[in-house]
Amino acid sequence: MKNIAVILSGCGVFDGTEIHEAVLSLLAIEQAGAKWHCFAPDIEKRHVLNHQTGEESGASRNVLEESARIARGEVRPLSALDVREFNALLLPGGFGVAKNLCDFAVNGTAMTVQEDVLAACKAFAEAEKPVGYLCISPILIPAIYGPGAKGTIGNDPETAAAFNAMGGEHIQCPVDDFVLDQSRRVLSTPAYMLASSVSEAASGINKLVAKLVELG
Amino acid sequence: MKNIAVILSGCGVFDGTEIHEAVLSLLAIEQAGAKWHCFAPDIEKRHVLNHQTGEESGASRNVLEESARIARGEVRPLSALDVREFNALLLPGGFGVAKNLCDFAVNGTAMTVQEDVLAACKAFAEAEKPVGYLCISPILIPAIYGPGAKGTIGNDPETAAAFNAMGGEHIQCPVDDFVLDQSRRVLSTPAYMLASSVSEAASGINKLVAKLVELG
Repeated sequence: MKNIAVILSGCGVFDGTEIHEAVLSLLAIEQAGAKWHCFAPDIEKRHVLNHQTGEESGASRNVLEESARIARGEVRPLSALDVREFNALLLPGGFGVAKNLCDFAVNGTAMTVQEDVLAACKAFAEAEKPVGYLCISPILIPAIYGPGAKGTIGNDPETAAAFNAMGGEHIQCPVDDFVLDQSRRVLSTPAYMLASSVSEAASGINKLVAKLVELG
Repeated sequence: MKNIAVILSGCGVFDGTEIHEAVLSLLAIEQAGAKWHCFAPDIEKRHVLNHQTGEESGASRNVLEESARIARGEVRPLSALDVREFNALLLPGGFGVAKNLCDFAVNGTAMTVQEDVLAACKAFAEAEKPVGYLCISPILIPAIYGPGAKGTIGNDPETAAAFNAMGGEHIQCPVDDFVLDQSRRVLSTPAYMLASSVSEAASGINKLVAKLVELG
């Protein structure tokens, strides 16, 4: 059975992992006959947002602890991820990617990637193992793979321009499909960058995960 | 298009809604051609648990605010639910049902149901509109429907005995099926009371939701 590592960034679309994308990913991994293993960096969230009002709460929450809510407790510190144990890697989206896994939400194209995230993603790239990026998480692709890496964040002009400014090659993609950079074994799909329903998000995620597990 | 109300109890299996069950429910409602509408009581959680360690954190969190994480902000106070606007009602599980929607986790068979939850569930029962209860949430059925109401929480002897002691008629049910009390139009399925994977939970939830929408 293939083993797929999944990196979470908290719990909730506005300050962590997009919950629907995460659950759809875990389901799709199982349905492709593989096993999921969740990881998250052991760091504080950049901030905590009230998801009903959008207001900042002032509270402090830990990314690893909150990610455990999505994983029913089955989550390990990202620093413990050993690439040799896994066939592929998957990163669901949510603002947590742009706020906790990197600082794109604050620094735009001058962003830096959190050290455990950088180490894990680079390790999969160097091992030439396939990696899937959902929603906003493809914003990490240029920093991991360098110039010319192909990916999609849907069709948002500003984010696509940022992707290209960092050296990537952005490709527009509908919600029910995915982009594959064959030479780098990198897959991406817009998910909630475009989706207006759970089932729309599922349409692209299911296709991407099936291919990710096949390649892994 | 049929409209299905969904009652959440927070965000995270140990102190709120079981996240996988909630997302699978929303997806299944869409796939049955209906539209979901999330509600939650505007109350404090009984307690907040670190989902990685199981320890109580001492923090205070609001059930409505945390439920908004699952619903991407699209959640309303349960006190605002008008039964006339909906065809059916669905309650995902998670310990939040037994800790926030009622106090079964603390008081067992002497439990009481939170007032907004009681009003909403009673309104659907009196309107003879179908209601689906997942996982541990069928523990509410005896309090809502009175003596003889049929439901399942899987096959856990202690919880089944509590269900019967409160006047219900517990029926054992495998994870991939559901129990229908036809005269009361009440559906229940074990979900994570029995499931050992997301896809196992999905198997029963998908069947229950398809029937719920059909009846609604």
